[in-house]
Amino acid sequence: MFEYTITSKNGRARAGIFRTPHGDLQTPVFAPVGTQATVKTLTPEHLKGINASLVLSNTYHLYLRPGDELVREMGGLHNFMQWPNPMLTDSGGFQVFSLSKIRKIDEDGVTFKSHIDGSMHRFTPERSIQIQNNLGADIIMAFDECADPNDPVYIQKAMERTHRWAVRSLNGHGRTDQALFGIVQGGVDPDLRAQSAEFIAALPFPGIAIGGLSVGETKDEMYKTLDVVTPLLPENKPRYLMGVGTPEDLINGVLRGVDIFDCVLPTRLARHHAAFSPEGRLNLMNAPFARDPRPIDETCDCYTCRTFSRAYLRHLIAAKELLAGTLISIHNLRALIRLMEKIRIAIADGTFTEQAPQMLAQWDNNAKRAKTT
Amino acid sequence: MFEYTITSKNGRARAGIFRTPHGDLQTPVFAPVGTQATVKTLTPEHLKGINASLVLSNTYHLYLRPGDELVREMGGLHNFMQWPNPMLTDSGGFQVFSLSKIRKIDEDGVTFKSHIDGSMHRFTPERSIQIQNNLGADIIMAFDECADPNDPVYIQKAMERTHRWAVRSLNGHGRTDQALFGIVQGGVDPDLRAQSAEFIAALPFPGIAIGGLSVGETKDEMYKTLDVVTPLLPENKPRYLMGVGTPEDLINGVLRGVDIFDCVLPTRLARHHAAFSPEGRLNLMNAPFARDPRPIDETCDCYTCRTFSRAYLRHLIAAKELLAGTLISIHNLRALIRLMEKIRIAIADGTFTEQAPQMLAQWDNNAKRAKTT
Repeated sequence: MFEYTITSKNGRARAGIFRTPHGDLQTPVFAPVGTQATVKTLTPEHLKGINASLVLSNTYHLYLRPGDELVREMGGLHNFMQWPNPMLTDSGGFQVFSLSKIRKIDEDGVTFKSHIDGSMHRFTPERSIQIQNNLGADIIMAFDECADPNDPVYIQKAMERTHRWAVRSLNGHGRTDQALFGIVQGGVDPDLRAQSAEFIAALPFPGIAIGGLSVGETKDEMYKTLDVVTPLLPENKPRYLMGVGTPEDLINGVLRGVDIFDCVLPTRLARHHAAFSPEGRLNLMNAPFARDPRPIDETCDCYTCRTFSRAYLRHLIAAKELLAGTLISIHNLRALIRLMEKIRIAIADGTFTEQAPQMLAQWDNNAKRAKTT
Repeated sequence: MFEYTITSKNGRARAGIFRTPHGDLQTPVFAPVGTQATVKTLTPEHLKGINASLVLSNTYHLYLRPGDELVREMGGLHNFMQWPNPMLTDSGGFQVFSLSKIRKIDEDGVTFKSHIDGSMHRFTPERSIQIQNNLGADIIMAFDECADPNDPVYIQKAMERTHRWAVRSLNGHGRTDQALFGIVQGGVDPDLRAQSAEFIAALPFPGIAIGGLSVGETKDEMYKTLDVVTPLLPENKPRYLMGVGTPEDLINGVLRGVDIFDCVLPTRLARHHAAFSPEGRLNLMNAPFARDPRPIDETCDCYTCRTFSRAYLRHLIAAKELLAGTLISIHNLRALIRLMEKIRIAIADGTFTEQAPQMLAQWDNNAKRAKTT
């Protein structure tokens, strides 16, 4: 179980297969985020229709609502939300640090206040793993401490605690049908990152995540950090860059040897009427789209692009119809999943490093903001 | 075109086929409402999946936004919203009277204020038909005046004007690929209803609608009105009871010779977490459903019931996930469409009038309010 086979390499980029109890995962892969046991506004059928393979869900949210015990009683997360393919849960650490009012971090764990009802809760590495065992995803994450990237003293302390918690997470893990990944921390300090990569790489995790990026550092800092970390990681384990990202981050991540990505960006943009396209990121509410009979992207094979005009999508947005968010989410997710499919083919063909600058140029327009038209 | 063939009869109930340019409509039929060129939160694929045949859209809303000229430019309503099967538009009259601040009704038409931006607009019978010609539905409606059912003097005046407007609607209709239906008015006064039925029946409409019901009168008044009207209508034209209704209204309507129904009830209930079930109408937010592994209705063949537990639906509602509305809408619409399928089979078998009391008893629980569990 959890064997990772590299099927081809091109520069530092790798294409491979990670075996899980819910099927083989072809990497590099982009995972849609289903925060509350649902990728917002989409059914599992929609996800199958865009060839999604791995879906992420959030331990912090599911622990608070509906509760991990309830999910376990309902047959686990796969059965509860009826997603038959591989799933991943995070440890809850990141949301504790970003969403809740933290009351106390100590060596043993974190006491925090629910962002929903203000009730008090406590996560420790053992508790996070127990909750993730109840949820039952194929890939689960060690409990880590996420530090402010601009506070070097705290970064080091948090990294060291993350290492101790990594060992406790491993010891607390009881299910052989779930792959527990360790997490490399260390902010944007190359020495700390190297130290963390070596520590985590030496532990018997079947996969390794890179945490604490895409939290305010520059793109350059992110890519330099990857340049430090991935060469220190074992070849035969998948690497997961958490919470990343934009199309150009995916291309740059794969170029640096990353295999797994997740991000809320495609679905969040969709709910704000922004769509990825070869012309750049489109704000579909803009007036010129009112009579535009073309699909979002004429080269896209998704249900939305095969079926609906920009004019119709713009009408749904103007009329405040929720179907707009569903249809644009389908397209934006498919755009990133299709990008990963193209990258996998290019790695297999040995042409990815050669094609990457062109791919980056194509996605450059989509990076930051909507076009004015 | 627009031939109506009765394939079997049982008492006053009829089963038949109405031919339209977008396919044959099997009657009796229940039409989901797609107010703004979308059945709220559902894709056309969802509608095909529940065997929806006829979809209604609202002329008032589409005229204001995105505009009927724009819809025509985009290839008409079928192409705009990508619904390949039969469609129906109303005349806009009912919404002018219920949603907008009316400024002036005169013999020629109605001047009204948009509920969206307060701008002024005018509908006449000719204008309503022209707008509906632009929208391009298979079945369109004569422009009528909807009167307060509790004002007998106004009811008569409005009915007489509706008759004059019916003639003007016919004269204003230019497309042979759209069936224009006349509308019987007259409140709950049996004499006025009889007079209106005879007047409208004498005009060359390919189908006849019964308007002004389900607007505050009692169920008894509605059924008595149908008992007056339908016997006066020609056998070989389909009869459409506008804006009705609840499951028991559908059964009672078919028993009285009605062929076509539409109502927002199933989708509106769904967005308020209420689901039709054999146990009665369920409020899925209620606590006992949190750990209920059963589908909404074990006998239902819809995607929602084939796939998801009440526990999952309850979680989506509690977590304010919009997917809840989508999934419950699929079920509620399928429940009424399946009811109509059963009724068609029972009419063909000659057992509908016999089965009707049992069908009514089964749906009785769903009639008014959610169960407390």
